[in-house]
Amino acid sequence: MSTDRHPYRNALRADRPDTVVHVGPARVAIGGDSVALIAGPCAVEDRDQLLGIARGLRSQGVQLLRGGAFKPRTSPHSFQGLGREGLEILAEARDLTGMGIVTEVLSPEEVPLVAAYADVLQVGTRNMANYRLLQAVGATDMPVLLKRGMASTIEELLCAAEYILAAGNPNVILCERGVRSFEPLVRSAFDLNVIPLLRHLTHLPVIVDPSHAAGRSDLVHGVSLGAVAAGAHGLIVEVHDDPAAALVDGAQSLDLEQAAALADGVDAVARATGRKLGRTRSTVAA
Amino acid sequence: MSTDRHPYRNALRADRPDTVVHVGPARVAIGGDSVALIAGPCAVEDRDQLLGIARGLRSQGVQLLRGGAFKPRTSPHSFQGLGREGLEILAEARDLTGMGIVTEVLSPEEVPLVAAYADVLQVGTRNMANYRLLQAVGATDMPVLLKRGMASTIEELLCAAEYILAAGNPNVILCERGVRSFEPLVRSAFDLNVIPLLRHLTHLPVIVDPSHAAGRSDLVHGVSLGAVAAGAHGLIVEVHDDPAAALVDGAQSLDLEQAAALADGVDAVARATGRKLGRTRSTVAA
Amino acid sequence: MSTDRHPYRNALRADRPDTVVHVGPARVAIGGDSVALIAGPCAVEDRDQLLGIARGLRSQGVQLLRGGAFKPRTSPHSFQGLGREGLEILAEARDLTGMGIVTEVLSPEEVPLVAAYADVLQVGTRNMANYRLLQAVGATDMPVLLKRGMASTIEELLCAAEYILAAGNPNVILCERGVRSFEPLVRSAFDLNVIPLLRHLTHLPVIVDPSHAAGRSDLVHGVSLGAVAAGAHGLIVEVHDDPAAALVDGAQSLDLEQAAALADGVDAVARATGRKLGRTRSTVAA
Amino acid sequence: MSTDRHPYRNALRADRPDTVVHVGPARVAIGGDSVALIAGPCAVEDRDQLLGIARGLRSQGVQLLRGGAFKPRTSPHSFQGLGREGLEILAEARDLTGMGIVTEVLSPEEVPLVAAYADVLQVGTRNMANYRLLQAVGATDMPVLLKRGMASTIEELLCAAEYILAAGNPNVILCERGVRSFEPLVRSAFDLNVIPLLRHLTHLPVIVDPSHAAGRSDLVHGVSLGAVAAGAHGLIVEVHDDPAAALVDGAQSLDLEQAAALADGVDAVARATGRKLGRTRSTVAA
Repeated sequence: MSTDRHPYRNALRADRPDTVVHVGPARVAIGGDSVALIAGPCAVEDRDQLLGIARGLRSQGVQLLRGGAFKPRTSPHSFQGLGREGLEILAEARDLTGMGIVTEVLSPEEVPLVAAYADVLQVGTRNMANYRLLQAVGATDMPVLLKRGMASTIEELLCAAEYILAAGNPNVILCERGVRSFEPLVRSAFDLNVIPLLRHLTHLPVIVDPSHAAGRSDLVHGVSLGAVAAGAHGLIVEVHDDPAAALVDGAQSLDLEQAAALADGVDAVARATGRKLGRTRSTVAA
Repeated sequence: MSTDRHPYRNALRADRPDTVVHVGPARVAIGGDSVALIAGPCAVEDRDQLLGIARGLRSQGVQLLRGGAFKPRTSPHSFQGLGREGLEILAEARDLTGMGIVTEVLSPEEVPLVAAYADVLQVGTRNMANYRLLQAVGATDMPVLLKRGMASTIEELLCAAEYILAAGNPNVILCERGVRSFEPLVRSAFDLNVIPLLRHLTHLPVIVDPSHAAGRSDLVHGVSLGAVAAGAHGLIVEVHDDPAAALVDGAQSLDLEQAAALADGVDAVARATGRKLGRTRSTVAA
Repeated sequence: MSTDRHPYRNALRADRPDTVVHVGPARVAIGGDSVALIAGPCAVEDRDQLLGIARGLRSQGVQLLRGGAFKPRTSPHSFQGLGREGLEILAEARDLTGMGIVTEVLSPEEVPLVAAYADVLQVGTRNMANYRLLQAVGATDMPVLLKRGMASTIEELLCAAEYILAAGNPNVILCERGVRSFEPLVRSAFDLNVIPLLRHLTHLPVIVDPSHAAGRSDLVHGVSLGAVAAGAHGLIVEVHDDPAAALVDGAQSLDLEQAAALADGVDAVARATGRKLGRTRSTVAA
Repeated sequence: MSTDRHPYRNALRADRPDTVVHVGPARVAIGGDSVALIAGPCAVEDRDQLLGIARGLRSQGVQLLRGGAFKPRTSPHSFQGLGREGLEILAEARDLTGMGIVTEVLSPEEVPLVAAYADVLQVGTRNMANYRLLQAVGATDMPVLLKRGMASTIEELLCAAEYILAAGNPNVILCERGVRSFEPLVRSAFDLNVIPLLRHLTHLPVIVDPSHAAGRSDLVHGVSLGAVAAGAHGLIVEVHDDPAAALVDGAQSLDLEQAAALADGVDAVARATGRKLGRTRSTVAA
């Protein structure tokens, strides 16, 4: 009674064209020939912080905003996020800037709440094999950003996507964020092989989180350019207006100036491989 | 706003004595100076299979029965367990044999259902950092068997336990089941250092799952003896009456004869380190 | 009596400019703003094979030729290379094409022999911490290509380079070739973080071996472009005129057509990051 | 021209009985049903230190003495051992105590020198795949203690042994010392599966180095007992008369009192598995 057919038959490339997932008010494309940039702070800390970062990114042409309201933290005694209040702040940022909102959901029961505010439901690395959560986001029709588990194999990642696809939701975006490593100087090992490998194995879009992969802001630029050159469909990057004061993950956050330089560098590499970075060129009124 | 005190302050050894968790109708002790053996099939497959294995183990003196009713499987297209029917079969085995029942729970919503049948709620390796599930089992007063994540650090394991403890449930049993490895000949790497390390760091009982650690039945005997000699408080071992026909994990299951030899070997090693294996010597009427 | 100063003080970036190592008859630059391509078969198999591949690569503008004469093989019962005869064939290829020759040396005693034929002495991944060999190549003034050990840390790699530098030879080229991984679909994990990290930590040139990193030819193109975009100073790539018939490592070798496409792709990415691929444009007489 | 027969055909268990290697003046058995203990400092630091430790261990019945004269150190700027002077001190310890001497050799040229003083030639973890060194120790008839590489697979370890066996030396002792791990609290991961696995795959004796596996002296006792219970033929343990003052690896060294307790614990576990620790009961005159 083991699997009688392919274990991730819906995610399998076969001869299918690339899936393109459209996100947010502006229907930003993730997948295919576009390169997408999602940026923002690790955690929503307060209204001023989030709106300031959102405006700054929006003025650079960034179209998609990340920010955590429910934060899965290793210790129960660490800051756990603002919860519903964080979601409301994110929704206000969307209203102000037109950016699409990417935020994490932690359990099946919280899917309706988060879905009411977000444009993309993020399933974090700790929950990649939380199959009840995958089934719950699979029962919606919303875009899902599925992060690879901290030491999952590629087959396990694709099978996790399969749980969502098999539940009826085709809008899955895979996200590589590095795996456990023995190297003390970085947070994770980001095996670049994974990008062309996933491009061969599946039709789903594949983006990279260089902030968690590296765990240090000084590596994010190089890693981002490399990921895109290798074929990634986009990046999700931590950006903070004041990384040194961030409540979570400050050491791996870019500041707004570094974010602007990153977007330019990524666009140049995307063009060298026949694509370009999706950006909104008009400045934002807000 | 990061952790202002120790991230797993409730799990910390400090100068606390060993926690002893009492399990099932016979209040079997896990922790302290006893060595406990939990055995049974990976999945409950049908009534005859489960009751046969339970009777066989019970006649050997085994006091605790494992068996999965809700199975977290890598692919959604694999056998997912019998669900509620599996729980009912497990409860029948308890009624027949007096054994305590250990079975897995996959989501917060399912905690009340599983808790109504089980003596120990198992949180599997995939869900070690599913914090909503940890909070849900922490809101009960039942024993929880918490498996280490496939590539979690020891601090992450102890912080996961801390979620349960901080929610008010002191009955946590840690379970090492190996981590991801590059070695193709085994399923996981079971770092033996972890056993004395956990014994130093925490007062919680620490058991080992040699079946998942090795992934091959021919290594289970040696690994089990080593784990107990190094200080483990017990074992959770996959045993099947016909491993070759098992629906899940047959290659790593012992048969009943091997299980009996294992119990004898473990008892000898336990005695060499000043302890003994908990066994019921009376034969079972059933 | 532990290290009283920095453990790799000669390799340390400090405020030193990039080291540029000049290789072979044409003094090809490795390091600084150029991007270098080294290509050729895993092993020298016979004269016709090697000269055919060398001519093919040379006609594409490739300036540096790799090929193994002494092959360190996992089993003593596998093909161990042609030895001195292989070196003579490599030298003939240099005479014919003007390409610089990169080949491996396995022990201190063999350094004079290999140095008499090669332009670059390669220290392979198995010998990264063979300190007597490092001291022996350090006692020459020849360029040394030092591959990272299969699971060495970055500090260990830089300390291995330090053995060569401290022995008086400044011409060290670091080569990342991936580390051990639990992922069965690839040969190694090539942690892209390592490229910008090494660029920050050391002034030595850093190249990448995508063939061993991936272990599959279908990933080599993407991984190569990513490595260069992330800041690598070049690549060492396995190319064979008939990969399916190669004695060693055929599955990860490009054919000559794929090699030509790779050079074009790498050059485009190099230009997008303000550099360019070093190539000889004149066609070769041979 | 790949391997036409089994890649480690001489090391293969097949239906061969256990190889027993006899070591030193007393012909101490390693392999088969005996459990051997090798103990001593990481490095020979001076005559008084080494002779003091040797006498202390000898008075406890320990039969085999370890100590490094040529130390392979990560940085060239660290203490590299006393060299020939260290070998002379080791030989003096043998004359005084009758203990067999285990010490490392780093290159083919140094094999005759080290062989003139030692009873066992140790090939360290960094040189497991230094095939020229393996061939050189294979050309002697001395016992060779071959340590597993820091991230070698089991097949690679057995193939390394095969290099020695194929060169004509049958006296190979395998030594597991742990592999690279992501866990920051220990030095290496010692996968206990490896012990029964090697016992199945090969007829060669298998010992364990718990000091390097753990990297912390507080774990050595538990890990040692576990290794022996799982089937190891012995241990090589770092013992220092004053660990806090050791030049190398003090944090993982036992003191003499802990060493005595270890021997007793190991003997009890060995007896629980039908064997016993090899010890000399007579007190030493020296």
